[in-house]
Amino acid sequence: MVFKKITLIGTSDESFDAAVDEAVDRAEDTLDNVKWVEVGELGVEVASVEGREYQAEVEVAFELA
Amino acid sequence: MVFKKITLIGTSDESFDAAVDEAVDRAEDTLDNVKWVEVGELGVEVASVEGREYQAEVEVAFELA
Amino acid sequence: MVFKKITLIGTSDESFDAAVDEAVDRAEDTLDNVKWVEVGELGVEVASVEGREYQAEVEVAFELA
Amino acid sequence: MVFKKITLIGTSDESFDAAVDEAVDRAEDTLDNVKWVEVGELGVEVASVEGREYQAEVEVAFELA
Amino acid sequence: MVFKKITLIGTSDESFDAAVDEAVDRAEDTLDNVKWVEVGELGVEVASVEGREYQAEVEVAFELA
Amino acid sequence: MVFKKITLIGTSDESFDAAVDEAVDRAEDTLDNVKWVEVGELGVEVASVEGREYQAEVEVAFELA
Amino acid sequence: MVFKKITLIGTSDESFDAAVDEAVDRAEDTLDNVKWVEVGELGVEVASVEGREYQAEVEVAFELA
Amino acid sequence: MVFKKITLIGTSDESFDAAVDEAVDRAEDTLDNVKWVEVGELGVEVASVEGREYQAEVEVAFELA
Amino acid sequence: MVFKKITLIGTSDESFDAAVDEAVDRAEDTLDNVKWVEVGELGVEVASVEGREYQAEVEVAFELA
Amino acid sequence: MVFKKITLIGTSDESFDAAVDEAVDRAEDTLDNVKWVEVGELGVEVASVEGREYQAEVEVAFELA
Amino acid sequence: MVFKKITLIGTSDESFDAAVDEAVDRAEDTLDNVKWVEVGELGVEVASVEGREYQAEVEVAFELA
Amino acid sequence: MVFKKITLIGTSDESFDAAVDEAVDRAEDTLDNVKWVEVGELGVEVASVEGREYQAEVEVAFELA
Repeated sequence: MVFKKITLIGTSDESFDAAVDEAVDRAEDTLDNVKWVEVGELGVEVASVEGREYQAEVEVAFELA
Repeated sequence: MVFKKITLIGTSDESFDAAVDEAVDRAEDTLDNVKWVEVGELGVEVASVEGREYQAEVEVAFELA
Repeated sequence: MVFKKITLIGTSDESFDAAVDEAVDRAEDTLDNVKWVEVGELGVEVASVEGREYQAEVEVAFELA
Repeated sequence: MVFKKITLIGTSDESFDAAVDEAVDRAEDTLDNVKWVEVGELGVEVASVEGREYQAEVEVAFELA
Repeated sequence: MVFKKITLIGTSDESFDAAVDEAVDRAEDTLDNVKWVEVGELGVEVASVEGREYQAEVEVAFELA
Repeated sequence: MVFKKITLIGTSDESFDAAVDEAVDRAEDTLDNVKWVEVGELGVEVASVEGREYQAEVEVAFELA
Repeated sequence: MVFKKITLIGTSDESFDAAVDEAVDRAEDTLDNVKWVEVGELGVEVASVEGREYQAEVEVAFELA
Repeated sequence: MVFKKITLIGTSDESFDAAVDEAVDRAEDTLDNVKWVEVGELGVEVASVEGREYQAEVEVAFELA
Repeated sequence: MVFKKITLIGTSDESFDAAVDEAVDRAEDTLDNVKWVEVGELGVEVASVEGREYQAEVEVAFELA
Repeated sequence: MVFKKITLIGTSDESFDAAVDEAVDRAEDTLDNVKWVEVGELGVEVASVEGREYQAEVEVAFELA
Repeated sequence: MVFKKITLIGTSDESFDAAVDEAVDRAEDTLDNVKWVEVGELGVEVASVEGREYQAEVEVAFELA
Repeated sequence: MVFKKITLIGTSDESFDAAVDEAVDRAEDTLDNVKWVEVGELGVEVASVEGREYQAEVEVAFELA
């Protein structure tokens, strides 16, 4: 059994929780066997967006078939 | 005055805030004189649970009697 | 173009999201051209407050005029 | 010449060496030109397996064609 | 559900794997519900022992009842 | 032979050396077989004390019986 | 909006700037919507090359379609 | 004698050296007694600029009068 | 309530404790509401001074009015 | 009593344990009073060797005469 | 085969690339079998020099005979 | 101009300041042109000594002739 980890950054104009969820949703839409997620850097983009964009970097681990 | 720190991991199916709170609740139920809490790693367990389990590692500092 | 970064710690009795927002609000009230924010340490103050005070350290980057 | 690095986690019920080897085997089965491997976190899964499962996170560098 | 983590250092005159196992054995002898283990610093004591003593620091996570 | 490590924070209104010593004193009062100590974060509390309170976080390693 | 990050290592016999550029060039040749790049480890390979090979590890973030 | 450190991010469309220099120039224009500079994160902005913008975060230490 | 942190480096020809104190003194002379201090890098300057100059980098947190 | 630390990288085509041992052997052949060893990065060289070469970086502490 | 690593700091009044090269030059002048170099901290000395002195800390790995 | 850095660990039964000084003394006895010193890990040895032995790891930078 071998796992692979990839790094995604989810975004939300609501909250960090929603930003994490968006990244996990994306991972589960395109990968089978997502196992766990580690949260990395959190940030807020201010300049290039309306209002604030919450960003959460996550590492997603899934089992290789 | 000497403090001690222990490491707990709270879990929640709702949010990271709730996962932190659960760990702090637990600490306050069993320890006198909890002083402050430092949040460590955040993660999401996917494989072994229904839906998603938000996890928050915290270090809890309390004063030794 | 040169940016400067400063370190603020926002607090909230509600949530970490609100603590981050409070720090960003403060930065935008007093600085022009806030560009982005990086979230650092999260913590909870227990001893010196009623209930719990959520704290979020953030680095705020803004463009120097 | 450009290299790419991916992150794999090998597992073994024998040893950490075997866990690293399993991840490198997998990389060499599916990638040409594997060049070197850096070992990251080591861990042992206890709860969800029979006995103990040794886990080794590795970063595998390979040359892009 | 709340987990607690403690830090142990296992030793062996044979190998790092055996040093890790000794620490996990000890944890399982005295704690219910050991869930997973993260390996920290590895070292070799030379001066105060016959031959070499392999040492492995591990963090052991277990579920609080 | 297995060691355990715990984290204490000693305090002193004199010096960091005294803060470390206070934590080690406490460890030796309550634990047999203290072996070595690693010094972590140093800090100074200003707001909630008269004068200054020097604080030293230490990890204390002791041999389990 | 979700971003993905991958890790590349660019090489050059000229300079670190050129090594970074080579990795970014490669990313832009094969990925749409490259957004930003973070520079990681820099190194120089001496043994297996003529002269010196400057190497720059970079993390490339791009927006997923 | 007390020094203060501030964090600036210089930018250049040429090179990382020029990005560092731009930040140091700015510091010397506005601060007396700049003593030394430590280089932090390097990055490349791609999305919001023409071509590439090299960025260098630096900590500038200067002596307080 | 929002805190700000700044980075100072105190110096002393006596001891690290005195170097920390010098930086905290300076902070308290020029800032209201200093709350706590975190000690960072310690060093000794030898070349450009008579004897030895002990240096202590500290982060000073104070409450914004 | 003053100790010095040097950094060695041992190699083995067998295992990480053997790579560590090779570095410690070398240290003990050429240095008196080797006291302890801290294990740093582990890696596997694939490209420039037959099979796999396990590498272990170690810091060796010895007492100066 | 055992490698040793030493830490050098090269300096240049031109660029960081030149500072790295100066350190590697020095290593190759005095050591046989230099294999690879890892770049550490970059900095700029301002106070004690004319103009600016670019500094690059490097770890040089070479094979022991 | 090239600097070299070596790692020493000074010890004292008095204080951390004295442990740092002992390492710097040693460096200055055997090396010309010691420039600066960076303090690393601090620790206390308890088991193998009478009383307590304060230990300070330092990196000593000196100019190569």
